[in-house]
Formats: sequence, C-alpha cells, structure tokens
Amino acid sequence: MELKIAVLPGDGIGPEISAQGVNVLKAVCSRFNHELLLEYGLVGAAAIDATGNPFPDDTLQMCRRSDAVLFSAIGHPKYDNDPTAKVRPEQGLLAMRKSLGLYANVRPVETFKCLLHKSPLRAEIVEGADFVCIRELTGGMYFGKKHQDENEAYDTCIYSRHEVERILRVAYEYACRRRRHLTVVDKANVLASSRLWRKVAQEMAPQYPDVETDFMYVDNAAMRIIQDPRFFDVMVTENTFGDILTDEASVISGSMGLLPSASIGEGTPVFEPIHGSWPQAAGLNIANPLAQILSVAMLFEHLGLEKEGALVRNAVSASLDAGIVTPDIDPESKETTSSVGQWITDYVSN
Amino acid sequence: MELKIAVLPGDGIGPEISAQGVNVLKAVCSRFNHELLLEYGLVGAAAIDATGNPFPDDTLQMCRRSDAVLFSAIGHPKYDNDPTAKVRPEQGLLAMRKSLGLYANVRPVETFKCLLHKSPLRAEIVEGADFVCIRELTGGMYFGKKHQDENEAYDTCIYSRHEVERILRVAYEYACRRRRHLTVVDKANVLASSRLWRKVAQEMAPQYPDVETDFMYVDNAAMRIIQDPRFFDVMVTENTFGDILTDEASVISGSMGLLPSASIGEGTPVFEPIHGSWPQAAGLNIANPLAQILSVAMLFEHLGLEKEGALVRNAVSASLDAGIVTPDIDPESKETTSSVGQWITDYVSN
Ligand SMILES: CC(C)[C@H](C(=O)O)[C@@H](O)C(=O)O
Ligand SMILES: CC(C)[C@H](C(=O)O)[C@@H](O)C(=O)O
Repeated sequence: MELKIAVLPGDGIGPEISAQGVNVLKAVCSRFNHELLLEYGLVGAAAIDATGNPFPDDTLQMCRRSDAVLFSAIGHPKYDNDPTAKVRPEQGLLAMRKSLGLYANVRPVETFKCLLHKSPLRAEIVEGADFVCIRELTGGMYFGKKHQDENEAYDTCIYSRHEVERILRVAYEYACRRRRHLTVVDKANVLASSRLWRKVAQEMAPQYPDVETDFMYVDNAAMRIIQDPRFFDVMVTENTFGDILTDEASVISGSMGLLPSASIGEGTPVFEPIHGSWPQAAGLNIANPLAQILSVAMLFEHLGLEKEGALVRNAVSASLDAGIVTPDIDPESKETTSSVGQWITDYVSN
Repeated sequence: MELKIAVLPGDGIGPEISAQGVNVLKAVCSRFNHELLLEYGLVGAAAIDATGNPFPDDTLQMCRRSDAVLFSAIGHPKYDNDPTAKVRPEQGLLAMRKSLGLYANVRPVETFKCLLHKSPLRAEIVEGADFVCIRELTGGMYFGKKHQDENEAYDTCIYSRHEVERILRVAYEYACRRRRHLTVVDKANVLASSRLWRKVAQEMAPQYPDVETDFMYVDNAAMRIIQDPRFFDVMVTENTFGDILTDEASVISGSMGLLPSASIGEGTPVFEPIHGSWPQAAGLNIANPLAQILSVAMLFEHLGLEKEGALVRNAVSASLDAGIVTPDIDPESKETTSSVGQWITDYVSN
C-alpha cells in the first residue's frame, strides 16, 4: 500500500519527537512493504517565523493531498502573556482543525502498569481505567462570534443540530466497538447549547439500543474522572468542556507523555501527542517520544492497518518492560528521546 | 449583637443538614449573647412545588432584610434529564445569586488529616493543600444571551471590565490575607473574554506589588489541581470554568462533605455547603452536616465574629478527632446527621 504522510513537527520538542515518530513509521512501512511518501510542513511559531502565518496555505495543501498527518506540538513562550499579539501559534492549530474539518478529537486514556506509581491518584482508584474522550473540535466558543474592546468582551458557544449529531455519531460508533457505555457530558441545567446536545442525544439513543447512554453535568464529570475513572467507557462533550476534561483525564494515568490522540472528521486525519511543545526542554533530547510513537500506531489503525499498529504498540510495551525510558518516567534513566526512539525502531525492524 | 439570618433549607438532604446548622448557630449565639432572629424561606424544588417559582419574591425580600443567608442545597431528580422543563430548581439558585448581586463565590479547599485516606489522590501529593477558589458567579455564559431552537442553540460568555475588576479585587484581597499568590485562570489563547480578563489583571497587578500574580490556562489548571494542588494559594476564574474547577478541587481533599462556601458581593451574603442535595439520601438522617456547620463558621467570620467562627471550627475538629462522624467518613460509624450535629451543638454550648 502507498502511504502519503504529511509531517508537521511544529515547535519546542516537536521536531525531536517527530523525528522518532518518523523513524518508527519508516521502519514499520519497510517491514510491511508499504511505500511511504513523506512531506514536511511548517506550523505554529515555526511557521509564523518563516511566513507570518501559523498555518500557511502550503501546509494546508500538503495535508489535503496526504492520507494522514503526523503532528507534534506547537507553542512558544514569546507568545504567552501577550494578549495583544495579533498572530499566535495556537491559531495554526485551530486553522488546521477547521480547514480540515476535524470535528472529533479522540483521546484514549489508558493506564500502563509500570507507570501507575507516576499517577497522582491512588493505584486502587486508577488501575484499569480505560476510556476514550471524544471532544467536539470545530464548534463552540472556539469558533463562535467573538468580540473584545476596552470595556467588554464576549465569545459565543454555538452549535447546530448537524454538528451535534455528527460528533455523537462518532461517539456511539466508538461505544459500539468498546464496552457500550456512552456518557454525554454537558451543562444542560444552565446552557441552551447543552440542552440542544442533550435533546439530540436523547433522540439518537434509541438507534443504539445496545449502548447505555447516560448524561452527566460537566462539574460532576470533573469530579468523577478523579473519584472513579473506571466508570467511563466513552465520554463525549463539546469543545471547551472537552479541552478541560481531556487534559484532566490525561494526568490521572501518570502516563501523560505516552498518550496519543486522533483528530478526525471530513478531511485528512491528524495524529498527535496530547502533550504540548514543552519549550524548556527543546533541544535537550530528553522529551518522551512515546506519545508521538503511539500516534503512529493510531495512524496505522485508522487507515485499517491493524497489524502495523499492533507492532508499534508491542514495541512500546517492550521498551517500557525493558526499562528503556526517558527521565520523566525514571529519573535515574540515562536514555534520551533519540535512544528510546532508536530502541523502538530497532524493535519494529527485527 | 443582633443577627438576622435567613434560613433556606431547600431540597433533598437540605432540611436535615440545615437543622443542624441552625442548632449550632443558636448555640453559639446564646453562648456569646447575640440576639438571633431566624426566618425561613422556600427555594428550589420545594419552592416550585409550593409556589411555581424556584426563588419566590417572599424569599428574596427575606434575604434582603437579613444579615446573612444560611443556605443548604437544591435539586430534585424529577427535573433532571428533562430538557423541556420550563422551571427548574437550579433557576432558583441563579436567581438568588443574580438578585442579591453575589458575584463572588469563595471556596476554601483544605485537607483534614483524619480524612486524607478518603482522598483519591496520594497522600504525599494532597497533604497540606490549602487554597481558595474564587469563582465569578453572576456573569459569563450563565447569564449571557442564550437561544435554542430545533436546529441551533447558543450561549454567550460576556464580561464587562467592571465585572472583571470587581471579582479580581476580591481575589487580590484574599491573596493579601493569605500567602500572596494569585493564579488567574483563563483561556486567553482562544477566548476574547479571557483576553479581557488577562488584560484587566495585568493592569491591576501593579497595585498589589506584594502579590505574585500568575496566569494559567484552564486546561492546564485542571491538570495542576491534581498533580500539584499545593501550588495554589488563591485561584480566580470566570463562572463556567469556576463551576468545573471548584468541583474538581473539592474532591481532591477527600473532604467533600466538609467544605463550605460563601457567595458574596453587593447584597446579603449566602453561606452554603459545596455539595448538592443528594436526593437519594433525603430523610435517611445519614448526610454529613459538617459542610453546613462550617458554613456557619464562615458566616460568623464574614460578619467579623472571629471568635464565634473559631469556636465552630474547633468543635468540628474535635468531633473529627473523637471519631463522631457520619458513615461517609467512616462506614462503620453508627452516627447520624442529627447525632453529629447534636455533639457539635453540645460542644459549642459548654
Ligand atoms: C493550544 C490550544 C488552542 C488547544 C485547545 O485549547 O484546543 C490545546 O489546549 C488543545 O487541547 O489541543
Ligand atoms: C446547580 C448549578 C446551576 C450550579 C452551578 O452550575 O452554578 C452548581 O453546579 C454550583 O456550582 O453551584
């Protein structure tokens, strides 16, 4: 099979982890005799510096002609705490999501036994937690009408029935393939947009009689994720709530540096680590490449290449079992971003 | 001193815990020779059943002529999952906040040593956490323009400079009285309303040179609360973010049933437990009355009656040390809502 992949390393530790993801991608493709066509593009602060635009049209066109995008991270401190900056790296991310129609962000939250001691939660609470957060990604306050002047500012959380239906469809499909339990998270006791979500979900639920649908207020969900994470199988929610809850959910496993995500929808799907660009670590060769490498596994799986995905996952598990880990996992470790990536690349090659 | 207190027991376990709060209030007032004038009012589902209105005008007038409101909880399952219900108990809460101008919700998050084992977090992470969440309570999406029809719905997160300034003022005042560290939580990389918050905070910060002000994105805050709760001293944020983060923060201590809150602003301040109406436990005499009783402590303190507040806090600590606790704290305990309340009432009386 021919695979056209757009690689967007971005900012901070992005380029370093990207390189390891690409090495693994190449090694798996060569082992399975897939023809791999890679193109590299600019995004984020790197793209602003080069072109003034955080998501240049060249990058968009490259993504459009690819089968998938392997993305790393964006963000640079020089743009933080500057509410007046006209162009920000994050806008590149939002532009990418919107222009590729990536309305669903899918984030599996899993625990790795060897990392349970890194979880801020007690092992008996978090052990075995295994759920998927589905965050709506192209609607809500992120893209609704906004305004700011000296004396007032507003954002609009707006959803159409169509937008709600299609994201719930994705969530139900995941639930059907998993433990058939869908939790729709909203704030229907206060928000009109949430009441539309709840109404649409209540209308759709009978089409999935095997799936148990329940509704939870977002404040309650923020508690439940910590108190009883095993409760969840698939959780779906709107963009802003999803931003908050998926990040909260990601830390409970202790495996932040290991969690990949997929953004899917109408156009080319994007696979990326959930963590950010960690500018302080840029160039130090210390960042954990596993979330990026597991993004490669998700990429393969999404393209129907299950065996290829499984090989990557096995390699990652083997590296953890062998203690070949970056210092974020084991402070005593002398391994680096590139040595861990190399170990995994060797594993999948042999 | 003469104290006029409006008591609003509300729904579910509300009346049971309210009774214990009132007993403690009476006992402290009699010990300190304060003249206590109590009035009772309807709110929530109880008020809808009796009057059709979740916050009747009688209740509002009673609150207005009081020095403080002792509130318990509202909410009833018959109104949940019914997006079509025209009147909901929660509207009573929102009406109370808005009509009394209670723009600041103040929630201390503390850990109690004897309850650390109830925390979902590892003791070494949560022990000693001690911070205050200040949530804006009368702005944002809760009160902005909303609309819902068959095909579309929206809510508006709107803030004026005045609204932002006054809540930041409250937050800075708390920070000055505490460890002088204020964290302003927003989503300024995406939201216009957040950029106004950040701008106003940056303008105000120089007026409080002793306070260290930092800014944190809401998704990051949701992680930090779990990973490193001791980082925080005073946290301030807008209404919806505050709803989510304060609930998240409240569970980390393992002391959910013990946390009180104050809603303050222009009109009569309201003191209430942070927990909800727990309808399943209504009438069973099992609910923990401590959050309600500690709301009485906050009430005294807010009125400048420090000694009275301290006596209530000492009584609560003594009850915990003596193991006089409801089953949520110790499943083996035979104590009840009323027996714990009685023990504390006796303690403050002697
Ligand atoms: C960088 C920011 C705009 C982005 C978001 O809020 O969507 C990030 O937090 C994320 O979750 O991918
Ligand atoms: C009941 C609900 C309207 C309310 C809110 O969201 O403000 C509650 O969750 C709270 O935090 O006091």
